[in-house]
Amino acid sequence: MTEIFRLDDIQRALETVDVVGDIEAGFVAYSRGEVVVPPVGELLFEEPRGEAHIKYGYIRNDDYFVIKVASGFYDNHKLGLPTNFGLMLLFSQKTGELVAVLLDEGILTGERTAAAGAVAAKYLAPDFVERIGVLGTGDQARRQLRYLRGVVDCRDVLIHGRSAEKAAACKRDVEPLGYTVETTLDAGEVGATCNLIVTVTPSRQPLLKGADIRPGTHITAVGSDTPDKQELDPAILAAADIVVADSIAQCRTRGEIYQAMAAGLLDEDDVVELGNVIAHEELRRATGEQITVADLTGVAVQDLQIAKAIYASLRLMEDSAPCDHGRHEDTTT
Amino acid sequence: MTEIFRLDDIQRALETVDVVGDIEAGFVAYSRGEVVVPPVGELLFEEPRGEAHIKYGYIRNDDYFVIKVASGFYDNHKLGLPTNFGLMLLFSQKTGELVAVLLDEGILTGERTAAAGAVAAKYLAPDFVERIGVLGTGDQARRQLRYLRGVVDCRDVLIHGRSAEKAAACKRDVEPLGYTVETTLDAGEVGATCNLIVTVTPSRQPLLKGADIRPGTHITAVGSDTPDKQELDPAILAAADIVVADSIAQCRTRGEIYQAMAAGLLDEDDVVELGNVIAHEELRRATGEQITVADLTGVAVQDLQIAKAIYASLRLMEDSAPCDHGRHEDTTT
Repeated sequence: MTEIFRLDDIQRALETVDVVGDIEAGFVAYSRGEVVVPPVGELLFEEPRGEAHIKYGYIRNDDYFVIKVASGFYDNHKLGLPTNFGLMLLFSQKTGELVAVLLDEGILTGERTAAAGAVAAKYLAPDFVERIGVLGTGDQARRQLRYLRGVVDCRDVLIHGRSAEKAAACKRDVEPLGYTVETTLDAGEVGATCNLIVTVTPSRQPLLKGADIRPGTHITAVGSDTPDKQELDPAILAAADIVVADSIAQCRTRGEIYQAMAAGLLDEDDVVELGNVIAHEELRRATGEQITVADLTGVAVQDLQIAKAIYASLRLMEDSAPCDHGRHEDTTT
Repeated sequence: MTEIFRLDDIQRALETVDVVGDIEAGFVAYSRGEVVVPPVGELLFEEPRGEAHIKYGYIRNDDYFVIKVASGFYDNHKLGLPTNFGLMLLFSQKTGELVAVLLDEGILTGERTAAAGAVAAKYLAPDFVERIGVLGTGDQARRQLRYLRGVVDCRDVLIHGRSAEKAAACKRDVEPLGYTVETTLDAGEVGATCNLIVTVTPSRQPLLKGADIRPGTHITAVGSDTPDKQELDPAILAAADIVVADSIAQCRTRGEIYQAMAAGLLDEDDVVELGNVIAHEELRRATGEQITVADLTGVAVQDLQIAKAIYASLRLMEDSAPCDHGRHEDTTT
């Protein structure tokens, strides 16, 4: 009996779920070797320019496995459509049956990505965050700031975008979260004034230079999840005291760590995995002067964790609801 | 607006679709290099023993891309469940939007696989088929025989299974298709009396030996789609006059051709691709004495073709229906 859940149900369930806690637990299980995550499946399109990623995996001896599809089509704004779409599929690890289809339209990917940013900041940001810098003005910039509220006290934000208009729109959207926001067209200003920086652009060339970064800064690089996207000068990773990968296996072939390794400026032995940073205090920042970088390429265990949590919440909502509120149920199994 | 279709709708649509023609066209496009098919995604489970495959791809400049999931859990019969489940997802190649979810519970994978068997027989079977031999007594054995009716005149069938009971049940199910069926526990008898043989088991060791096969025989090997499944003695492929792969790229790493190449008995240069056999008559059987083998590992272009055809038919059915007959529509996009 496959259950189909739509966006409005999923959004309601999201309010009841501890996404950061679930993602954190997922990274720990991943770095302990308890999670099976095959290489990312990928489809690339040229006209219009777009991509689709398939991430999938399971925790051994768990009830489910998850397959997640996320698309990004970069001309969609011309059609008045969001860039990203997607869905998550939850299957039984015991029978292969499709248990649930979460028609989340890509938002769960956005949420689990932002939650990973919060996890990285929680364990790697300096004790005193002066100002939060964000490179990027899209949906993920907004989500990162929403999740950072739970792990960082600082409410001063500097947003950098190539378009003053988009930066202003982003400012407008995140100020109601309790932030005081300024915007800038100069990425260097972010490096000069912020000591917690999140990069969330689809850039293909470095936006931040090594010289931009002050001692004591933590950077979470979120935008690059393919071999050709890049937001950070490899010199930043070369100079960093701690370089963290969400998945070392994935960061070998995509993201900032891949770029720095390809440039010969970083060795795989110098990279630690986020799940180990969470589990082992000695792998974290030791002084207020250290520069730390977390490279998040997005790991299927995040999809697994959020899909399971949302499904559990949706089932509870069903049980307590007086009637079926919008759930579509397939009864033909 | 993602449309959700259930099994009963899909089965109704299936009756209106020329599956063999669509699959044939798909193979031709594939061998012409018009189709993007990344490597198969795979998840393996040990307890209970099971697997899930993700096949995905697109024809360039087409409207859609397709992602298909198929699972096989081999202890499901103990729970009274079918071995195979699955679904197909149809996305827009222009925006990445999820257009349709086909909750086919795996039957479309079964159908497109059986249709590929018919395509192989259509182009490679000897002119006069004396008797059709089937190794295997499962769902796919029944489907192969259903599709073979359209391409082969012979109605004499010999079914081999390890269980006399299951072979008898298969006989009972396929006789209403117009076949006269005998069963045997001896696989060698299939080689000795049949000149069109289809193998559809999940075996991990050869069931047919080189000495079993008579001149003039065509074998379609369907069961092996992983690196460890195998139904044919590599000597059969070594001795064959024509060895055909549905996808040379896939057969390098899975199926009978992979096994024969790993045994050092077959060279990749000696393998031709099914789409080329369809398009080029000179690649087919030249005499009634030649032995031919087609190794079908299942290619995403088959999923693409059947999903598109079913969706087109479902849309026509919607347009002509007086009311929405069981379709679930997601209106929150």
